[in-house]
This record gives sequence, C-alpha cells and structure tokens, in this order.
Amino acid sequence: MLHIEFVTDLGATVTVDVESADKLLDVQRQYGRLGWTSGAVPGGGYQFPLDNESDFDWSLIGARKWTNPEGEDMVIHRGLAYRRRELEAVDSRKMKLPAAVKYSRGARGTDPEHVREKADGEFEYVTLAIFRGGKRQDRYATPGGGRAPQQAARPAAPRPQPVAARPAPVAVVEDETPF
Amino acid sequence: MLHIEFVTDLGATVTVDVESADKLLDVQRQYGRLGWTSGAVPGGGYQFPLDNESDFDWSLIGARKWTNPEGEDMVIHRGLAYRRRELEAVDSRKMKLPAAVKYSRGARGTDPEHVREKADGEFEYVTLAIFRGGKRQDRYATPGGGRAPQQAARPAAPRPQPVAARPAPVAVVEDETPF
Amino acid sequence: MLHIEFVTDLGATVTVDVESADKLLDVQRQYGRLGWTSGAVPGGGYQFPLDNESDFDWSLIGARKWTNPEGEDMVIHRGLAYRRRELEAVDSRKMKLPAAVKYSRGARGTDPEHVREKADGEFEYVTLAIFRGGKRQDRYATPGGGRAPQQAARPAAPRPQPVAARPAPVAVVEDETPF
Amino acid sequence: MLHIEFVTDLGATVTVDVESADKLLDVQRQYGRLGWTSGAVPGGGYQFPLDNESDFDWSLIGARKWTNPEGEDMVIHRGLAYRRRELEAVDSRKMKLPAAVKYSRGARGTDPEHVREKADGEFEYVTLAIFRGGKRQDRYATPGGGRAPQQAARPAAPRPQPVAARPAPVAVVEDETPF
Amino acid sequence: MLHIEFVTDLGATVTVDVESADKLLDVQRQYGRLGWTSGAVPGGGYQFPLDNESDFDWSLIGARKWTNPEGEDMVIHRGLAYRRRELEAVDSRKMKLPAAVKYSRGARGTDPEHVREKADGEFEYVTLAIFRGGKRQDRYATPGGGRAPQQAARPAAPRPQPVAARPAPVAVVEDETPF
Repeated sequence: MLHIEFVTDLGATVTVDVESADKLLDVQRQYGRLGWTSGAVPGGGYQFPLDNESDFDWSLIGARKWTNPEGEDMVIHRGLAYRRRELEAVDSRKMKLPAAVKYSRGARGTDPEHVREKADGEFEYVTLAIFRGGKRQDRYATPGGGRAPQQAARPAAPRPQPVAARPAPVAVVEDETPF
Repeated sequence: MLHIEFVTDLGATVTVDVESADKLLDVQRQYGRLGWTSGAVPGGGYQFPLDNESDFDWSLIGARKWTNPEGEDMVIHRGLAYRRRELEAVDSRKMKLPAAVKYSRGARGTDPEHVREKADGEFEYVTLAIFRGGKRQDRYATPGGGRAPQQAARPAAPRPQPVAARPAPVAVVEDETPF
Repeated sequence: MLHIEFVTDLGATVTVDVESADKLLDVQRQYGRLGWTSGAVPGGGYQFPLDNESDFDWSLIGARKWTNPEGEDMVIHRGLAYRRRELEAVDSRKMKLPAAVKYSRGARGTDPEHVREKADGEFEYVTLAIFRGGKRQDRYATPGGGRAPQQAARPAAPRPQPVAARPAPVAVVEDETPF
Repeated sequence: MLHIEFVTDLGATVTVDVESADKLLDVQRQYGRLGWTSGAVPGGGYQFPLDNESDFDWSLIGARKWTNPEGEDMVIHRGLAYRRRELEAVDSRKMKLPAAVKYSRGARGTDPEHVREKADGEFEYVTLAIFRGGKRQDRYATPGGGRAPQQAARPAAPRPQPVAARPAPVAVVEDETPF
Repeated sequence: MLHIEFVTDLGATVTVDVESADKLLDVQRQYGRLGWTSGAVPGGGYQFPLDNESDFDWSLIGARKWTNPEGEDMVIHRGLAYRRRELEAVDSRKMKLPAAVKYSRGARGTDPEHVREKADGEFEYVTLAIFRGGKRQDRYATPGGGRAPQQAARPAAPRPQPVAARPAPVAVVEDETPF
C-alpha cells in the first residue's frame, strides 16, 4: 500500500491511499485534473525530457494548459499562469546547453527567496518546468493525446510496474566546477 | 480512504480519516466550523471566483463571518480579523484586472516575510482571500445559504464525485513577462 | 478515526490514534501532562478567553503551572518558564483593547525570528498565551479545578461532541487597516 | 497504537508503528542504537536533569558515547562529535544558575541560524544537550548501566505506563523579564 | 510495520508501507532506482566510510552513477550532476583529516543558504556525499557489484535484521572547540 500527499485546490493537506505502485500515476492524473498538487515545485522547476513537451500530461503535476486572450500558450498551476518559451541551444566555449522549452512567470512579492531566479536587470522569475534533452518517457504523455503515442507501434504487453523500470535519464545539469 | 490534516482551534496537528473523496468537503465544513484549518494560506491569499463571494462557505477554510462593532463586514480566521474591501476593475495600458473582493488585514510583527504584501509607504498587509473573475463553483456555497443556489434550477441528480469533475477556472493571475 | 501528532518530552515526533473526535481533548490532556505538545505555538501566542484564565487546563497545550522561588506565578512549556502578567484595558483614541492576562518570557538567541516581539528598547520577548475578551469555554477548564465549574449548575447532559459545537468566539484581533 | 517518525542513519524518513505508549522508549532505544533520530534537537539543546548525566542512555536520542584519540569524553550524534564540558554553578547578583554538564561543538557553515549560540568573540557553537538541576528520571538511564540504578531498592512493581506518570521537572530556564 | 516517505521522480510526496525493518534497505533500493529520495541531504552531505566508496549502491539515496561526455565520474541525484573528487589526507598542526572522496557540485541560485559551502573566493558549492575513514558497511554495497563482496568469505548465515546491529562508526567530524 502507498499513500500520496496532496494539497487540494482549496489548499487542504490530504493523503490518498493507493493500492499499488503501478496505480500511482493514475491517481496523480485523477486528482491533478482537479488542481491538486503533491510536493513542492523543485528549485529551478521540474525537469522533463524535451521529447515529452508536445503531449506532456500536465495533470501529473496538478497543472493544465491554457490559451490566454492574446492566443499565447500558457500553463496554469495553483492559480498562476506560466508562459511557454522556447530556448535555443547554446554552444559557446563557456557553456554547452541543448535546446529547451521553459514555462516560467515573473516573481511575485510573496514568492519565497529560493524559488526566484535572476534575469537581466532587477527582473526575477520563477520556473515551473523545463523540457531539455533526455529520452522521451511515454508514461508522462497525455493518454490519447494530440501526439501519436510511440507505444502504438509496440506489441501489446502488460504495463510495466514503475518499480521495475529504470527511469530514462533526463538532461543533466552539469556545472563546470573546480572540485 | 483519504486522510485530511488539520490544525485544531487549540493549535494541535490532527489527521481525520475520510471515507471517500466525495465526503471531503463535508468533513472540511464540519471541522472548519470549529475553527480547524488545513494547509497554509497560499502566498497572496486564497483565490476564488467573484461569483462565489456572496454566499461563500467560510467554514471550508476554517473561517467565519463577523460584523465588528462599527458594523463592518469582517472574516475571522485563526483568531485574526480580515476586513472586506471591494476593488474596482483596472483597465489601463499597463494592467488589466477585473473587479474583485479582497479580505485582508494589516501585517503583524510575527507574520513571516513571505505572506506580507507591500501597500503604500511602509504599510504591509496580509491577504486571506481574493474573489476575482472565474466561474461560480456551487460546491463552495453555504448550504442553504443567503443566496438562492443556482442548482435549485437543475434537475435532481446524484452529486458528482469531486474526482470526476474538472475545476472551473478561477481568474488567472498573468504577469507580463519577457520570457 | 483521528490521529494527533505530538512532540514528546524527549523531542520525538509521535502520532497517537484517537478513536473519535470527542476523545481528542482527553488525549491531549493525558499526553500533555507528560509535557508532550502538538503543533507550534501560534505567532503571538495562543489566544484564549479571559474568563478561562483562572482554571485553564495547561496540560491541553503540554504546559504546567509553576511557582518560582520568589513566589511568582509562572507556566512551564517545553522546559522554558513564562511569567504571568496582567495587562490593563487600553481605551485611547488610537487603540481600544480589553484587559488581558499574558504569559511571556524574554527571547533567547535560538528563538526563530517570527516568534519574537519587540518591547521597549532592544528588548524582545516571546508570548506563550494571551487571555483576552471572549466567552468562557468550559472544555478548556481543569477537570475538578480550583474554580467552581459553571457546568455544575447545568442539568446532566451527554457531553457534546466537539464537531457538533461552534467554538465560542475569543477576543478578535482587529487592526485599523486602510483596506 | 502509536507511530514514531525517525530519520534513519541513511537520512530517510521512516515511521515505525508502536503497540502502546509504554513500549515507546524501548522502540526509541532499539532504533536509536542504529543512529536513527526522531524530531529536531530543540533550540539550545535537549534539557535533562543533572542526576541523569552519569548513566544517560544516549540511544534515546540516537546518539552514542565516544572517546576521542586524546582520551576525551565525546558524544556522536548524526555523525558529529560533541565534547563534554562541566559548567560551574553561577551565583552572582545578575544570574543564579546551578552546576551543569553540557555537550556542544563548534558551529559549521551549514548549521541553520537558529541553532547557533554566540560565545566569546566571533565564535559560535551548537549544543546537543545540557544536564542541569531537576530530579533524576530513572527511565532515561542505560539499562544495566554503569551506575547502580535507584530502582534496585524498590519492590518489584509493574512498570508504569508513561502516560500515567507526571514527568519530573528538569531545571527551568527562567529569565528576568520586565513583563 | 514501517512506513518510508519518498519524494518521487515527479516530485510527489509518497509513503510506502514496509513489512519489517529488515526489508527497509530493499525498499530503498527498489524505489531509489527510480530516482525516488527520502529525507533531505544532510547539511554538508551524507557521510559514509571510505571503504564503501568503490561499490557504494547509489540507489540507496535515489542517485546513480554517470560518466559525462568528457569521461569523468559523476553521480546524478534529483537531476543534478555531482563530480567525484579525491581529497588527500591533511596532517598539519591545525587539522588532521584522513583521505576522502567527495561528490559535489557548484551552488545554484535556487539552493537554500544552509546547504552552500564556501570555497576559495566567492565560489560556493554543495556536497552530496563524502566518504572518509570509518569501517566498511557491507549493507551499503551494490548487490553483486563490481567489487568482490567481503561477505563471500563468510559462512552462510541468516541476514541480520538491521535493528539488531550497531552501525559501524563512520569517520567522526570533530572540531577543536574551546568548550
């Protein structure tokens, strides 16, 4: 038996029992569609493979897609809108970074210090998620989503239990450090 | 089975078992009437649709309405009084915000930094809730409340389980960010 | 079934199962007598009605009365002594506050910032509890305590389940805010 | 049924079910011998009666005695060594403090602000435990420890359930405050 | 029954039931292979015996080995890469430290203050783990790992329950303090 802790759309702390590990993502999708979230957004935002961006199931993290009145692609997470932004690959002598898609918003006065990132000037922003490098994870995709799922080509097989699989590596943040 | 974590009126941390997801709001109302709260007030306050303001069930967040000796509308939450204040719509070139109702109080010395918002001068305040935009959620209403509930016109139907419904969007806070 | 989380006298985090909501205060008394506490002291201290001060059951919050060698009334909470102090009513043009009894101590170097309150000069203190205004809550009284309990006059009646009762209002902290 | 939350020697958060309150200290000893700890060290350190120092069971807080290569008495707690130090009684006009034994170490760069205490100059230190005043608690002693246990003289009796006993007072920290 | 709390690879807070204490490390390995972690990295990093470094099972803390494009030995933990670095023994008059292997990375803007360590100049870094001194713990080894396990020479024996064994001491951090 597993137990997953959520913050509900009303801000309450609620734990839900889950029968087995292979049901966990289903439960996250089910409650995530209601805007329930589990755990804090990691500092610097969630990291996902770039190839998951097109059909990512935002309900997995309690978020949902939204098009703002200007027709821009946004994602809503806990009542706040994050804007989609494509980052080109960087290939300089100092830094080598593959292309990425980032969802971020301007910082608010009530954001805690450790989630704020500095941009140019005094501008500060907060990242919800960054999709960069890595190998596509089919289990992150929207079920029956807009993109033809890769598993369509696979022969029918029992769904693997998450505990049996090794997670595909996502892009690794590696700093050049002297130690 | 679900489990909701409360802080009681005596400040104790108590978890209550809840049989199923569709009983959750009932349990929040039942204990919220005693002043029990679950989870922290989100930074910047709870966000609810404006159309829920007239008959909002404050017990859902462990609060209750109160009229102060001067006859003003207040809400009590964890022993502190928040004043009701109507905000007019803003429609300038820099900002576009629909009308709202906000419940806030002056900051106290023991309020942590991340809940304080700046007003004019050195004044700081703390917001409990803001009602703005969005689509009315009948499930937030006071049962048999002062306002004629919209569902009165609906044919009798089994109450939907919260896990099956998609939450109605509330007004989205969208910042103009360069990224 | 409920579950209450304590910090024991040895500082351990221990959860105790409680059969039903009406047994909760009994469990808090039972373990509170051992110095176990549940939840953090609210910023600014617990707020209780003034009429509960004379026979308040300090075991409810894991504290106990103590008379220091000078004969002064103190309360011990988590190994620290708080001094009893009567505050006269304030009735000026700027502020109107009923009489109160406050239990507080000088701040220590290891007290976190958000519990410290400023007094005159550089002096800082920490409040455990303040008794002010409100309506007496018999359920907060020491069972068989020094004060003749008010319920003695009431006809025998089954003890109400806490979930069925509305908490009596305590004095409300209301600030004069411009919003 | 009780449940105690530990941080294991590997830093994991693990809760252990405990059948009844009188088994709790046994469970703390059993896992404490592995270096598991429950709860945070209180700001300023644990407070115990001085008469418990000679045969204190350090496993109760996940620590153990250690003699360093120089032959000094130390205690290891979460991989860090605390040095034993005897403090003489203070009896001045400003302060009256009984003799004590303190276990402390120099502060490290990664210690959070609220556990650091100031010593002379810029030196900062962190206290694990202080033994001062109070009345000996036999339940804190090492079972079959180096000191002849006081209970040897008592007639055989069923071990009291901790919930039935009132904790013996430890030395109380009392500040001279103007309120 | 035990219960271990994880943060999943998706950042969710999930508790897993564990039948008995001797199954705990197996469960940590099983979920750690998916990138799930339990508890926070201790300030200054995990401390392990140096003799465990060659075949340490990184899945125990939700990490995994990785060779970067330059062929360097790294460890990935929660999506961040830590570089392996050998530290020579220090034997000066001021400090005496045995040889060690450290896994660390440069600090990021969103790292909280208490995990940052100062290096030369303004450079700050974060340590995941340090292997120094101590006595090898076979239970930390990769099962069937690259190193010939020491237990191969031992006669067959039932695996000891972790609760019965005393943890082997790791190198102790001891500061020269004046108290």
